[in-house]
Amino acid sequence: MELERVLPGDIERRSFEIITRELGNRQFPEDQEAIVKRVIHTTADFDYGDNLVFSEHAVSLGLKALREGVPIVTDTNMGKAGINKTALKNAGSEVYCFMADEDVARAAAACGTTRACASMDKAAAMGRDCIFAVGNAPTALLRLVELVGEGKVHPRLVIGVPVGFVNVVQAKEAVLALEHVPFIVAKGRKGGSNVAAAIVNGLLYQLGKE
Amino acid sequence: MELERVLPGDIERRSFEIITRELGNRQFPEDQEAIVKRVIHTTADFDYGDNLVFSEHAVSLGLKALREGVPIVTDTNMGKAGINKTALKNAGSEVYCFMADEDVARAAAACGTTRACASMDKAAAMGRDCIFAVGNAPTALLRLVELVGEGKVHPRLVIGVPVGFVNVVQAKEAVLALEHVPFIVAKGRKGGSNVAAAIVNGLLYQLGKE
Repeated sequence: MELERVLPGDIERRSFEIITRELGNRQFPEDQEAIVKRVIHTTADFDYGDNLVFSEHAVSLGLKALREGVPIVTDTNMGKAGINKTALKNAGSEVYCFMADEDVARAAAACGTTRACASMDKAAAMGRDCIFAVGNAPTALLRLVELVGEGKVHPRLVIGVPVGFVNVVQAKEAVLALEHVPFIVAKGRKGGSNVAAAIVNGLLYQLGKE
Repeated sequence: MELERVLPGDIERRSFEIITRELGNRQFPEDQEAIVKRVIHTTADFDYGDNLVFSEHAVSLGLKALREGVPIVTDTNMGKAGINKTALKNAGSEVYCFMADEDVARAAAACGTTRACASMDKAAAMGRDCIFAVGNAPTALLRLVELVGEGKVHPRLVIGVPVGFVNVVQAKEAVLALEHVPFIVAKGRKGGSNVAAAIVNGLLYQLGKE
């Protein structure tokens, strides 16, 4: 199999051409299309063409939040690392992950919960409206939904794409049932920190084009 | 759909039970099984049960290298972030990623190549035998194969799991054709920084059980 000759600066454009071609005549709402394609680009998994669910105006509300400098909270340092820092800086936003913090580990041990769960409490304690990008832990997403119910957080957008086998589908269903909270969710078991970062980057890149 | 009641410390074990159950009577070589299951755990994608290819003794050679404190080089900071730092420290190993280095950006621009590619040259210039975990850029993997051919690097293990649509399959085929270099490759388009990190972690956790 011969190498395809593509200049470094053209690889991403060429990848999106291939994705578009292979999606055939699949149509996506205009605001969602770039996000769906970016997730497929990140995973080479066309299942995301069917899995991703957007609440009404989720993309424009996410972009509005980013334009206002609302910070992003991730549930893994991997998700944080995957967010394009130049695009983030250009947007005037910043990203936090509290998973590896010692006080979070202590709180989790004391409460018999996960660090991911405790990291959401720490995010809530910031007292700032945030975009939450949860790509790993369903326990983080479930705690986030509780915190919303208790009025302790008011997410500007919930990116709910944890991956796995225990309570992942349930956690996503809990987000889908939220009212008045914009969300982007990958239904089913699939997702990941890479998917969460790809969705954030997809938003940031749309901002860059404005 | 009701929540499954699982204690935080039992979530991973329960996940692996579900994966094992759903794999049914699929059999894997004993040394490879934990790696394959960990990648499925990371992605919720059972395709990896078929995609992953191990050269002979790849796992034991990778474990031997880690036991000797051989460093790991990744092609993304996301892959680096996904590696369990406690397990890495316990193994006496360390992880490097040169992607965001300014000299790498300069070298890539000067040579008309990608930063991922230039980051492999920087790894080679360390003059140390390494484990390479390439989860993102096929250009990194292709450059690594060239460097092997030129005798400039002697990888102790190549984890070749870049993801995408342009020269990804070709780059993996180039690794599969290597002689005398142990490899773990995800055939086809799929892979990712999360998959690369999962494979490294799968090795580190096996060390932890010794």
